[in-house]
Amino acid sequence: MPWDPYEANCPSRRLLDRIGDRWTVLIVVALDSGPLRFSALGTRVGGISQKMLTQTLRSLERDGFVTRTVYPEIPPRVEYELTSLGRSLLGPLRALEEWAVENMSEVVDRQREYQTAH
Amino acid sequence: MPWDPYEANCPSRRLLDRIGDRWTVLIVVALDSGPLRFSALGTRVGGISQKMLTQTLRSLERDGFVTRTVYPEIPPRVEYELTSLGRSLLGPLRALEEWAVENMSEVVDRQREYQTAH
Repeated sequence: MPWDPYEANCPSRRLLDRIGDRWTVLIVVALDSGPLRFSALGTRVGGISQKMLTQTLRSLERDGFVTRTVYPEIPPRVEYELTSLGRSLLGPLRALEEWAVENMSEVVDRQREYQTAH
Repeated sequence: MPWDPYEANCPSRRLLDRIGDRWTVLIVVALDSGPLRFSALGTRVGGISQKMLTQTLRSLERDGFVTRTVYPEIPPRVEYELTSLGRSLLGPLRALEEWAVENMSEVVDRQREYQTAH
C-alpha cells in the first residue's frame, strides 16, 4: 500500500506530526544511551510537564517506538527503552535536532533581517 | 553561544518545533524541485488551507528558509524558492518524510498489537 503524506487523508501525515513533534525528538534522542526511568526523562528534557511526558511516552509506546517495563520493586521501577523501530528513528531525529542547534544562530540573523525589512 | 533544545528556555526548541512541523516538512520538500507559486504549493500539499499555507510560508520566509519573489505581471506572479539555508534543511526533512512512508505499515501493526493488549 502506497503511503503519501502529500495526500490530505493519508494516515502517514499524522505519523509525520508525531515523529516531528519536539517532545518526540527530545525523548527518543535521550533514550539513545539506554533505558531511562520516567523521572530521569523528566529531568533530561527540561521543562516538560508530567502530563506531557506521560502523553508522549504513551503515544511512543502505542506506535511501537518504546517499551515500558515495570519492575516489581518497592516503590515500582518503570523504565522506557527504544524498540528496534524506535532506534531506526534515531538517525532522522538526531539529524533534525543537530540541524536546529547548528543553524540556530543563522536563523536568528535571518529573523533580524526580516524584521528590519518588514 | 551553545544552543541546547534540552533546556526549557532555549530558543532552539522553538526552532525544532517549526522545522518538525508537518507543513514545513511537506512544503520544503516540495520546493526541492524549484520555485513554485502559491497556488501550485496549495495543490501539491493536499488539504492545506490557504490560511495555513500563508502562515507557514511567512514563517519559512522570516526564518530565512524561503524567499518570496513578486513578478510585476498582471495578475502578479508570486513565487517561493528555497534559500541555501532552506536547502540545507532538505536532507533532514526528507529523511523524516521517507521514514514515515517506509515505516507506516509497521506502525499500524504496532498500534493494532497495542490496542489488543490494552
